[in-house]
Amino acid sequence: MSNKRKTSGILIIGNEILSGKTLDTNSNYICKELSVRGVDVKEIIILQDIEEKIINAVKLFSKNYNYVFTTGGIGPTHDDITAKSVAKAFNKRLVINNEAKKLLEKHYNINERTSARFKMAVLPEKAKLIYNPVSVAPGFYIKNVFVFPGVPRIMEVMFYEFIDGFLEKKILPQKQISTILPEGVIGDYIAKKQEDNKEILIGSYPYFKNQNFGVSIVLKGENKCKVEKLCLEIFKYLKNKNGKPKIF
Amino acid sequence: MSNKRKTSGILIIGNEILSGKTLDTNSNYICKELSVRGVDVKEIIILQDIEEKIINAVKLFSKNYNYVFTTGGIGPTHDDITAKSVAKAFNKRLVINNEAKKLLEKHYNINERTSARFKMAVLPEKAKLIYNPVSVAPGFYIKNVFVFPGVPRIMEVMFYEFIDGFLEKKILPQKQISTILPEGVIGDYIAKKQEDNKEILIGSYPYFKNQNFGVSIVLKGENKCKVEKLCLEIFKYLKNKNGKPKIF
Repeated sequence: MSNKRKTSGILIIGNEILSGKTLDTNSNYICKELSVRGVDVKEIIILQDIEEKIINAVKLFSKNYNYVFTTGGIGPTHDDITAKSVAKAFNKRLVINNEAKKLLEKHYNINERTSARFKMAVLPEKAKLIYNPVSVAPGFYIKNVFVFPGVPRIMEVMFYEFIDGFLEKKILPQKQISTILPEGVIGDYIAKKQEDNKEILIGSYPYFKNQNFGVSIVLKGENKCKVEKLCLEIFKYLKNKNGKPKIF
Repeated sequence: MSNKRKTSGILIIGNEILSGKTLDTNSNYICKELSVRGVDVKEIIILQDIEEKIINAVKLFSKNYNYVFTTGGIGPTHDDITAKSVAKAFNKRLVINNEAKKLLEKHYNINERTSARFKMAVLPEKAKLIYNPVSVAPGFYIKNVFVFPGVPRIMEVMFYEFIDGFLEKKILPQKQISTILPEGVIGDYIAKKQEDNKEILIGSYPYFKNQNFGVSIVLKGENKCKVEKLCLEIFKYLKNKNGKPKIF
């Protein structure tokens, strides 16, 4: 793969995911949006609301990847410690962010202004805001770490609005072939093709549809001609084997 | 929390999750099943099919947690490298597991016996099998690391069948209160209650239902009486604030 693609790590913060109470869909949403914008997610960590763990993970990912995205832990409650932890990871002070404070003041009338709510304006110094069109309390970013809330319907809108201006869509040439032959039958052949075509990424994914098992083979690479050539080659092989291949 | 509860880490292995193509539901299933069996999942890592990364994660989790569960990467294709990586993490040789080989021979007739398929009988030496009632190819465990396939409908059946004999169900006393008051209003109060009741774990989860936002507060602890007492106390507070609390 060309080095033009950027890398990313995602941190999902929250005990409710680890207890099984909540299914994490945020990381999947972010992975899809990044994938079409030329960013490969290399790793996702789902971790507890524990300061030390968040600090270590932020430091590690910030060093290893071009972009780090976090979700969760920026609400008004006692277990929302993401802002504090990100500040510590970068040795920044936590300060009242005036822009965030103004947004909250505009949204809540005087009776509604609890200290819990204004905690959401306390951010690492020099953090820039990520706007929240749904429920006002902003996300933020500092260096290469982008911090979003955990509630999916809020996170998704914020992420989309932000990323659409930040990273251009860039779709990697891709072809997909389905076949009724199981992985056990085509595995050796596909392994050889991967060996011979290292610049193309071949994924093999078993599926179950209409009471039948099958395999979906995905080819991705910077060079469109090479992807199409290999796709045709695999198609012919599967056809000869009565694998009823289809190209998508 | 009492030290009677065990800890666990989960490794989800597979590029298809990181590209956003597939939503991981395996970790949520495992978290739920472990939670009612007295095991707290502390961390989940979703990582690529890269040997070095899998080895490092297996070593780290095996050292840090009582149990490690992995899903993905034990099928017949070239990118299925979990068995090899787990073997290397424990300095074990990869060998043909005779029991696994017999299972596969029973299932596939001579024409169907490809080398890709028999790769699924090549396991770390001394690994014990985890049976697969759906598609025969077994999972395995070695030391405290339990290895499952990635396809959810197969993984879930295997996991349930295995864990039900392995870990007894043990439900931690728990109470849940819902309120129409937002987190921003009750956050300070809940933070104080958590501070005063360190042996009880208080979670606060915003939800959206029937066009209304609300918060669900979950209390968990070893001591049932203390959980119930705190639940009543919070209930009364929310009632006084016109928060329309309900106990579940």
